[in-house]
Formats: sequence, C-alpha cells, structure tokens
Amino acid sequence: MRSEFEFIQNIKKKYALDFIGDDCAVLPKDDKTDQLITSDLLVEDIDFRLEWTTPEFLGHKALAVSLSDIAAMGGEPKFAMLSIGVSEKLWKTDFLDRFYEGWHKLADEHNVELVGGDVSRSDEKLVIDSIVCGEVAHQRAFLRSGARAGDAIFVTGYLGGAAAGLRLLENGQKWTENSPETIRHLVLRQLQPLPQLQTAKLLQELRLPNAMIDVSDALSSDLHHIIAASGVGAKLYADKIPVDPAIVGEISDKAFELALHGGEDFELLFTCDHEKISTALDLGFHHIGDVTADVGVVELIRDNNSSLLEPKGYRHF
Amino acid sequence: MRSEFEFIQNIKKKYALDFIGDDCAVLPKDDKTDQLITSDLLVEDIDFRLEWTTPEFLGHKALAVSLSDIAAMGGEPKFAMLSIGVSEKLWKTDFLDRFYEGWHKLADEHNVELVGGDVSRSDEKLVIDSIVCGEVAHQRAFLRSGARAGDAIFVTGYLGGAAAGLRLLENGQKWTENSPETIRHLVLRQLQPLPQLQTAKLLQELRLPNAMIDVSDALSSDLHHIIAASGVGAKLYADKIPVDPAIVGEISDKAFELALHGGEDFELLFTCDHEKISTALDLGFHHIGDVTADVGVVELIRDNNSSLLEPKGYRHF
Repeated sequence: MRSEFEFIQNIKKKYALDFIGDDCAVLPKDDKTDQLITSDLLVEDIDFRLEWTTPEFLGHKALAVSLSDIAAMGGEPKFAMLSIGVSEKLWKTDFLDRFYEGWHKLADEHNVELVGGDVSRSDEKLVIDSIVCGEVAHQRAFLRSGARAGDAIFVTGYLGGAAAGLRLLENGQKWTENSPETIRHLVLRQLQPLPQLQTAKLLQELRLPNAMIDVSDALSSDLHHIIAASGVGAKLYADKIPVDPAIVGEISDKAFELALHGGEDFELLFTCDHEKISTALDLGFHHIGDVTADVGVVELIRDNNSSLLEPKGYRHF
Repeated sequence: MRSEFEFIQNIKKKYALDFIGDDCAVLPKDDKTDQLITSDLLVEDIDFRLEWTTPEFLGHKALAVSLSDIAAMGGEPKFAMLSIGVSEKLWKTDFLDRFYEGWHKLADEHNVELVGGDVSRSDEKLVIDSIVCGEVAHQRAFLRSGARAGDAIFVTGYLGGAAAGLRLLENGQKWTENSPETIRHLVLRQLQPLPQLQTAKLLQELRLPNAMIDVSDALSSDLHHIIAASGVGAKLYADKIPVDPAIVGEISDKAFELALHGGEDFELLFTCDHEKISTALDLGFHHIGDVTADVGVVELIRDNNSSLLEPKGYRHF
C-alpha cells in the first residue's frame, strides 16, 4: 500500500507542484517578506482521544502542531483559521467553548489572531483542521533540502517524552494535577506540546541551520525527510540522542526506542556547518549526528556497531 | 440549541475577532493589495454522499465552494491547500487520484496552485477541508456590511437548481450522461457548481455592489446575513426571483421554495445604488428586491401581500 508520503510525492510530480514538500508552503509576499502557510488535520480516535485529554488541551494542541510547522521554517506566526466538524452531542456541551479557550490562550502568547474557519456537523467523530499563516524574511525560510554532507545534526531538546506520555495514556493513566511530576511532565508533552517558536527565532537570527524540520513524526522519520529532500545521508550517534530523563519506571526499557521512533515532541531537528558546532552546543542544543554523502542512508552508531536506521515513526498509511 | 451563526458571533465578540464575519477574511498584504483567505470543511454524509457523486465531481466541488467565497468578496483566487481525512478502505482505491483530477481541472481554469495541505486517516467517513487564498485591491473587497437603505437587491443567476438536483438525488436519481437535459442540468448544479469568478471580476471592475455574498446557504438565509451585517432590512418581490427553469416535473410545485430556501447555487447576491439598476439589468442580473430601513426585517411581497421571510436555508446546527 502506498504511504501518505508516496502519495504526496506523486501528486507533487504529476501536477508540478513546486511549493509542496516542507512543513509550510513558502509563498512570495513582497520584496522583503515571504508568507508561510500550513494546515494540519486532526481526526478523533486517529490523532487524539477525547477520553485522554481535556477540551482546553486539545485546543492548545490543534494550534501548537501548526505553530510548530511555522517554527520549523524559522518563521513567525501571524494569523490562523480553524475548521471544525463536530457531532450534535458534543455541540450541545461546553466542549467547543473550552476548546477555544485552550486555543486562544496559546494564540495570545504568540500574538496569533483567529481570522476565519468553518463549522460543520459530523456524524460522530470530531475533526479539526488547523491553519496557520506566518512570515519569514524573503528567502530565509529553513527548508528540508538545505543539508550538505559534512553538516552536523542537532536537536533542540529531549526526545521520547511525548511518545512515553502517549504510552502512559494508553495504559490507563489519567491526566491529573496530582500525579508525580515525571508522569505529569510526560503526559503534558503528549497533550500540551510547546511549539519551539522562541528557539526558531534565535536560530533565524543566528542563521545557524542549513536545513530544519520539527520532530512530529519521529526522529528517525523526520531525519529521513531531511536526507531525502537534500540528497544526502546521515549518521546518528545513539549515545548522543537526548532521551527525555522523565522516562522512568515500567517504560524506561523502551526509552531509547521512544526517542528514536516516537513522534510529537515538536523539538527542532536541524543541520549546520561543522564550524558552528560550538555555537550550537553553547546554546544547549544536542549534537546527535553528522550528514554524510551516502545518499538515502541513515546509519545508527551504537557501541561501535553501525546499523541501518529505518524511518519507523507514525504514519497514517 | 445555539446555531452555528450564534456560536461564531459569540466567539467573535468574546475574543474581539475583527476579521471574522464575511465569506473570506480580508487581511492587509501591501499598500495596493489585500489578501483573502477562506476555509470550507466538507464531511461525508453531512455535506455530500459518495454514492451520489463521482470522485472528480467531489474534487471539483471541494474547490468550487471556496472559490465562490473568493468571488463573493470580488477577489481573484491565487493558491490553495487541501486537508483530507480518508479511511483505509478508500485510500486503497483510485478515489483520491480521481478526486485530485477533478480538483485540478477546476484549479487550472482559474490559475490556482495547490501549495500544501495534510493527509490523515479517518475511521470511516471522508472529511475534506478546502482552503483558498486570493487577492483583491486594497479596501476593495465587497463585504456583507455595505448595504444601505434604498439599495436595489440583485442576484446574478437562476436559483433553486442545486437544491432541486439534491432532491432528485435523494429520490434515487443517478448521475448519468444519458439523462434528459433538464435532469442533467439540475444534478450538475448540485454536484459540480460553478463559482462566479468571472462575474465577480466584472462587478469589481464596475464597482457595482455595495454589499455582496454568495448564495450558499440559501437566498433567504444569505440575504439575512447581509441585512444583519449592514443593519438594514429588505423587501423581496416573489415574482422577480429567477427560479431555475429546468425545475419541472414532480418537483416543479416546490420550485419557488427551492429557489428561496435551497442553497448551493453559488450565484452572487448583491446590493447596489438605485441609480445603477439599469446597468445591472443590462448585464442580465435579476433585480429581486430593495434594501429598507426596517432593521432586521425581510418582507416577501407576493400577490400584493407582504409576509415575513425567515432564513430557512441549510444549517448544520
């Protein structure tokens, strides 16, 4: 069965769609500015479960995933739209009011204004399409295609936390303020992810990245997106990957797998010139690998052994 | 139960959202140009039925409804995004390829480029969010709020055809090239509506409308949207309303009701200065009523009797 990535590549080729292929489309606005636009569709029981989250968290997350796409391009968000298909049962509750509360709280923090959208009915399942437009200086958007052999590979923060939080929820953990701190942290990584817009702004000011993406599918998959778009390969050093230290207890033996193949941490994954490594390290980012000329190949170096790393992150198809 | 219109008004007021309330949001682009953006969510078995349409028609319609929003503002479409949630069963067929064929055929006619979107899985029902961005000269977008007492009310074409087509489909009529011409016409009005972009361009060049909207919910409802936004009232003349002449046979006794309360004809409904009536008539538009100072009231004048016209078009809630 074709994957969603193959399907999109197909459509892109068939209709010669040059703007498709990054976290956002980059469109000319004026001489100084490019416009960024992204759309993220969230479907109940596929992308989220109402029994695991709160309406406020869901509103937050619907916006956060799109803000993260803007961050991945090194841009600033400006305005947004929300299209929602909702069942009559849910419509009659205060769900949407609370959902918009959560949405607006995050929007206010980033000066994002809601300018439109649509409301439709659905038979049963809730669907949300989150659209965000942003801006970036002309030709300054960070693309997936900018990585060069010899670049260093960095990630901005800890990985695996969101996937561990998902695992906890799947195992019956409920969201509550009274959980131990590590549990709360992991569950919030899953339910209330933070888009790395401040970090993206800093990276933009420093012109540090050659290529960038947000870790939404998984480190393994998102790195594959970069090397495919850039026509390069990569080596990852297992002992350098920053596994979320809150992953303890019964899921701790899976921690490394969660960091590698679990998605939704929404940290930024970027490559930069080798001579900029110390700058990036000084900023607290994690040097986890290097870009190679071995086109299409990602090696994982672990205990002096090398193995091929497949993209095993989340796929809808 | 609150209607979707009440809900949106509520959100608009609560969060002081000035850009919400027209067919598109109008955003500043540069000194000469404003940007238009719109999003339309279509949910299977609520907004369309797969057994009544073809994938190509559905692709066409998903784009057409958003292009019609751009037309309603007197703008020109530029680029678009599509977010689709699709079941695994449908994913495995050629449905999406044919859907994109239909989408692109209409997009090409209007020089609209697909720049992004999202693919998600759904448990069962297909959901489509269609996003279109366009442009209009600075401060030249036609708004719902521009109608003034004394304006004439015009509609650009025949009404009721799309609703009659829906009625036929509900009664078991299948789409086929071999149906009688009137049947084909009505079914196509429903399945393959044509956005009035050429007409919108002409109206923009002539600066004819003071207020405009597309007839998507229904004449009765969309006129109520205009008078509410403009703080005026209206009189409609029953014998002037252009009922689609293809509505014959068993549904003909409902023809007037379909023209008044059936939606999705995607003609343009506008008001203009009284002295411009002859210009509008010369262009073939239909003078169906007048704007009054009777705030919030729409009268229907029929056989010299006046009755209150309620908005009875389609509502999701």
